[in-house]
Amino acid sequence: MTTKAVFLNCSLKKSSEQSNTEALFKKVKHHFDQEGIVTESIRIADYQIAKGISEDEGAGDEWPILFEKIKHADIVIMGTPLWLGEKSSIATNVMERLYGGSSLTNEKGQYLYYNKVGGVVITGNEDGAKHAASSILYGLSHIGFTIPPNVDTYWVGEAGPGASYIEGNGMENSFANEHAKIMAYNLIHFSRILKETPIPNEGNVVSS
Amino acid sequence: MTTKAVFLNCSLKKSSEQSNTEALFKKVKHHFDQEGIVTESIRIADYQIAKGISEDEGAGDEWPILFEKIKHADIVIMGTPLWLGEKSSIATNVMERLYGGSSLTNEKGQYLYYNKVGGVVITGNEDGAKHAASSILYGLSHIGFTIPPNVDTYWVGEAGPGASYIEGNGMENSFANEHAKIMAYNLIHFSRILKETPIPNEGNVVSS
Amino acid sequence: MTTKAVFLNCSLKKSSEQSNTEALFKKVKHHFDQEGIVTESIRIADYQIAKGISEDEGAGDEWPILFEKIKHADIVIMGTPLWLGEKSSIATNVMERLYGGSSLTNEKGQYLYYNKVGGVVITGNEDGAKHAASSILYGLSHIGFTIPPNVDTYWVGEAGPGASYIEGNGMENSFANEHAKIMAYNLIHFSRILKETPIPNEGNVVSS
Amino acid sequence: MTTKAVFLNCSLKKSSEQSNTEALFKKVKHHFDQEGIVTESIRIADYQIAKGISEDEGAGDEWPILFEKIKHADIVIMGTPLWLGEKSSIATNVMERLYGGSSLTNEKGQYLYYNKVGGVVITGNEDGAKHAASSILYGLSHIGFTIPPNVDTYWVGEAGPGASYIEGNGMENSFANEHAKIMAYNLIHFSRILKETPIPNEGNVVSS
Repeated sequence: MTTKAVFLNCSLKKSSEQSNTEALFKKVKHHFDQEGIVTESIRIADYQIAKGISEDEGAGDEWPILFEKIKHADIVIMGTPLWLGEKSSIATNVMERLYGGSSLTNEKGQYLYYNKVGGVVITGNEDGAKHAASSILYGLSHIGFTIPPNVDTYWVGEAGPGASYIEGNGMENSFANEHAKIMAYNLIHFSRILKETPIPNEGNVVSS
Repeated sequence: MTTKAVFLNCSLKKSSEQSNTEALFKKVKHHFDQEGIVTESIRIADYQIAKGISEDEGAGDEWPILFEKIKHADIVIMGTPLWLGEKSSIATNVMERLYGGSSLTNEKGQYLYYNKVGGVVITGNEDGAKHAASSILYGLSHIGFTIPPNVDTYWVGEAGPGASYIEGNGMENSFANEHAKIMAYNLIHFSRILKETPIPNEGNVVSS
Repeated sequence: MTTKAVFLNCSLKKSSEQSNTEALFKKVKHHFDQEGIVTESIRIADYQIAKGISEDEGAGDEWPILFEKIKHADIVIMGTPLWLGEKSSIATNVMERLYGGSSLTNEKGQYLYYNKVGGVVITGNEDGAKHAASSILYGLSHIGFTIPPNVDTYWVGEAGPGASYIEGNGMENSFANEHAKIMAYNLIHFSRILKETPIPNEGNVVSS
Repeated sequence: MTTKAVFLNCSLKKSSEQSNTEALFKKVKHHFDQEGIVTESIRIADYQIAKGISEDEGAGDEWPILFEKIKHADIVIMGTPLWLGEKSSIATNVMERLYGGSSLTNEKGQYLYYNKVGGVVITGNEDGAKHAASSILYGLSHIGFTIPPNVDTYWVGEAGPGASYIEGNGMENSFANEHAKIMAYNLIHFSRILKETPIPNEGNVVSS
């Protein structure tokens, strides 16, 4: 039984441009590859994602394409850059759309995202990673994802204007590299544990 | 094998005074009782908890008493009131002290809090619950706790000055009651799952 | 000398749909009208605002239209609904674009937004207003706006699913109404004070 | 007419120990000294500050000593270190106590803190400064302080464990130094502006 991971890269840039967040995610993906996890990385800016709080906003909304991938994933990782110390507007848009699907239930009557595990990868030239991680991991947990320990991997530079992850030599930051490894393995461990022992539906079936 | 839960009630008031947060926690505890979970509720304001970032600040510091209880618990629930839309200073103090113990490792070389699950109970007369939940759940996750889905139970009233949980009839709020139940059961489920299948130590042993 | 206020309504809905945040803003506008402030309310969802961190992202980007209005305003009020306890993705987009213009300077060499005053209006069916207010007011302050006291007006209902501002009878909430008045007057007072006594440029001219 | 500034240093350490946040504040104070501002720096950890939400919690509470100094100050600057990406428990305690005095009014019927200006100085070995600044500046604004532009000065190092401000050579960080200067001057400018033109009490007199 294959384990599938999707990385939702919420960079403001399309995939025609280099993404620092993608570069840090590759550190996580390296361990996924070694463990045989099938990984797909999606640059959200390449899609037309409508604003709204529903599964499908119609009229050119491409969220349903992504939602389908998310439904089939065991591991969902949000990626975001930092602006004004916060996650990007695209990350906020994705969280709103994930929330829009949160009232759906699985075959056991639990929220749709039960038995899926979530994590986050963040890069910025300076400050804001923990705030963005806190926002995203809480949001995921609130709509049904499981959050294993230590699933926030980030790199930021010293206070003030400065180089981003790639240019700032972040790829050699031992803290970020160690966390990328711990995060990858804890996502894998929990994904496997929850495949073997799905969350029982006692006490958590949603009233309709 | 008994499952133990500790509730760290970070009300600014000592146990000689009524706590709204305690009252909401009792909704969670009701389900713990039914499932045979051994629960201890601790009013942090009754103890002298020193400021600092270590396991023991010496000189009258009573944190080691609480830390011992936390070490033996399977489920740790933070409880907090809201002031200016944020968790209390006592809750911040407890998070700092929990962080102070986060570099300790278990017999497998993982962070001490691995295989423990965390949740949060919040009351306020108005606004701030999700921000406080986000802060606390992220902090717990960052130091090694597992965060099951939907483990934030809260009650707040309409915007503006007004009655708190007990006086404001929050005990009959069906949203808070349903979440207390889901939270209790998901904490129990994950605690049992992790007793049966502890997190493997592949990839997450901390470098010393 | 006319005082101009712009309201940037970051509802996820276009102006063809009713906005609760607009309804609360009207409480603020009522006082602006009485004091002869010229007010323009803009529904951001009606415009094509590109993603990015610059003044003009080209290719159909309609931000420059709004940026021109903002440049000529004395008072800028952000409006946002709440999702997952946070400001909307459109509000995040607007903050990013405002930030994109923050390196511009006025004729005295200060950041462009100096001598402009900022405030925020928030509605949600429940919880999150203070977190969103904190995020927006900090962002505005960080890029050069002055934040007078008590310029956050909000309405949220009791915890859990429920009616929004209009349907939930928020228009009669005396706390929200009093704050709408205090906010309106403090924005007017500071706007007038800063017209009479602009911020001297000693010590705050930006190095180029 | 002398302008008075108080710096509330919320380090977890007493003044017998070196404070990185104090060291960064000295960069701000340098400009205060040049402009003849009378400055007092208070290490909160040296005092017994009770928990609670009132002006005086009795029984050894030393907050009233500090509150008296704050009442006579024109400029109030909060200082805090970072733990888990957030302001310290002592800073949270101080914000709660400041809030406890916020219902008092001045001779014109406005909140007590009207015509006072607020700012924040933050140091940490890594990440969290903007989140802490956002929390503190919003809290101050919400209880009546004026927040001039760019009054958040901070230093943090690159992601991961590492040296703090002094040891990490933060004192030579040009971004932090420039912001210390802008912050100092904007606090002085607004303090002088509000002495000359206090906030009129039209529209902002609090209902009793």
